[in-house]
Amino acid sequence: MDYLELMVPLGERSYQINIGTGLLAQCGEKIAALTDSRVLVVSNPTVFQLYGEVVLNSLATAGLEVHQALIPDGEEYKNMTETMQVIDQALHLQLDRGSVVLALGGGVVGDLAGFVAAIYQRGISFIQIPTTLLAQVDSSVGGKVGVNHPQGKNMIGAFHQPRLVVADLNTLDTLEGRDYISGLGEVVKYGVVWDKALFDYLETHIEQINQRHKSCLQHIVYECCRIKSDIVAQDETESGLRAVLNLGHTFGHSLEKLGEYHRYRHGEAVAMGIVIACFMAEDLGLISTKETARIKALLQGLQLPIQVPQYDPEAVYNGMLGDKKASNQGLRFILPTGIGRFTMADNPDKDLVLKAIKRAM
Amino acid sequence: MDYLELMVPLGERSYQINIGTGLLAQCGEKIAALTDSRVLVVSNPTVFQLYGEVVLNSLATAGLEVHQALIPDGEEYKNMTETMQVIDQALHLQLDRGSVVLALGGGVVGDLAGFVAAIYQRGISFIQIPTTLLAQVDSSVGGKVGVNHPQGKNMIGAFHQPRLVVADLNTLDTLEGRDYISGLGEVVKYGVVWDKALFDYLETHIEQINQRHKSCLQHIVYECCRIKSDIVAQDETESGLRAVLNLGHTFGHSLEKLGEYHRYRHGEAVAMGIVIACFMAEDLGLISTKETARIKALLQGLQLPIQVPQYDPEAVYNGMLGDKKASNQGLRFILPTGIGRFTMADNPDKDLVLKAIKRAM
Repeated sequence: MDYLELMVPLGERSYQINIGTGLLAQCGEKIAALTDSRVLVVSNPTVFQLYGEVVLNSLATAGLEVHQALIPDGEEYKNMTETMQVIDQALHLQLDRGSVVLALGGGVVGDLAGFVAAIYQRGISFIQIPTTLLAQVDSSVGGKVGVNHPQGKNMIGAFHQPRLVVADLNTLDTLEGRDYISGLGEVVKYGVVWDKALFDYLETHIEQINQRHKSCLQHIVYECCRIKSDIVAQDETESGLRAVLNLGHTFGHSLEKLGEYHRYRHGEAVAMGIVIACFMAEDLGLISTKETARIKALLQGLQLPIQVPQYDPEAVYNGMLGDKKASNQGLRFILPTGIGRFTMADNPDKDLVLKAIKRAM
Repeated sequence: MDYLELMVPLGERSYQINIGTGLLAQCGEKIAALTDSRVLVVSNPTVFQLYGEVVLNSLATAGLEVHQALIPDGEEYKNMTETMQVIDQALHLQLDRGSVVLALGGGVVGDLAGFVAAIYQRGISFIQIPTTLLAQVDSSVGGKVGVNHPQGKNMIGAFHQPRLVVADLNTLDTLEGRDYISGLGEVVKYGVVWDKALFDYLETHIEQINQRHKSCLQHIVYECCRIKSDIVAQDETESGLRAVLNLGHTFGHSLEKLGEYHRYRHGEAVAMGIVIACFMAEDLGLISTKETARIKALLQGLQLPIQVPQYDPEAVYNGMLGDKKASNQGLRFILPTGIGRFTMADNPDKDLVLKAIKRAM
């Protein structure tokens, strides 16, 4: 077993991220070091059929009492009804304050299972085994957990850090093409906003990335987790700096909403959002057309969409206003000021925003 | 306006408790210093009819936009259904991350409103205006929030510290006799387990306490909050020391359950639990019969019950085993080792426990 270890430095809430191949079969030992009580594995039927057995066996071999709770596959099940069903099950199984909730799956499973762990008996231990690229580079790190409400995404939730994250790169082999590509949208975001070296690496490894080379993925997942944990360590509860991770997201959420959360994967919407942010930044003289072109070329090389469909630009704008990340004071955009650098723009001129949206269509 | 200020020292989560008379009419100014966004006052119809107007006026005069959400009166409404209704309302009112949830009421209102604040958009500001003695000396301080599940009390919740607690002693005038007395059960607990000076004060002020003298109550509420905040500051998430606050509670919860949560008020059950704990401690040679007699006399002087009704002692014992405070490892009791001192007893002999229960009948 060959893997990289990364420590997320959050004082007494610090935790390790393990990134490598073949980790599922070995996870029991690591987890048994964190608890001697029951483990409830939360997953969905698709993922559980692929990886449930190997994880359960590893946990049982390590001497742990293991149970499972499955939620249906899909963002529409990231809700309070499913949350309460998992909690009912946890109570039925008599999970106590020393027990562990383990998320085996992508972002939906991780967010919901993490929320269960956050509110069950005022908070119990939580472990993430993310099985999608999006979850490995983004949602499994940082402690944001929660579910959707009919009136908005992630409206109900908490900050609850995991005690361990195990990213097994082999699970990425079974991802559908678009789901894999969606994860790459977030990967590019890290490069654009924070780390030119990562951006350069992505540019020079497009082919290997598209072929899902493991050594390449190990480097990318490690770097993304490192960047995210640096940012989270400076701003655990998103009161400032952490907003940088929203590059492309303000537009992205609006596009996801217009597509009724079916037309685009999250990372695809983020990719289009990055392009709009580049156009705004260009207009404000923050980046050059050459840099925008490089960013677009990378997104395109990774098969991510860079052209926004013909929605009414006003509708895209209004969709952003309803976004929860818009504070009481108005809209905040993260704009690149070069590759690997950013600035925050509060309440930019509406015309500037509309112009960038139109230009991306 | 004459009031005492107490700081709960929790680093960046530190907050003030104000204890005095006539504070409701002045609360707006204090709260306006903490937010410039919307305030959602959560209350129940009984309390709201008494104090809603004065609080709303004070907030409005301070320039704040105020809304209200009422939950029905009673422990049976401290559940997820009511929680979700308040959250629906918060979303409908477009509360954002800068908004405030304000609890105006007793423990049920405080626990539920605090839980809404804990999970709404991953946590927003929370302010407590406790209107019962129990809430002023116990539940409004320390950040434990949550709701009940059909399978157990407080099974769903979080630790979410308030940003301000305003204890207006005038609200205690409208408390029903038994509700006032119930609060005194927790007051005695603090004296027995932690602070001999408080115990002595209570002993020498029984008449004034029973007549609800304000200056006496101000001292008592202040001292209880001081003790609780000392303990909470050392153990915010109840991993150790905070268990001391459970003196009488392991028995108490079982008695409450046997009384189907109607027969006894919480503090009454705690009082009976304290007596049983004294008998156990006596049997173990930890306290003298004289000390037990003093504790019983104080409880009795404050009109609290000291005799356990004729339940089957086995049923009382089994009720404790189902208590969530019983860890995976078994039962833990807090036992007095004198007035103002305690010890923890893990898994004492069952016969010892049964003997103490029988003796209290």
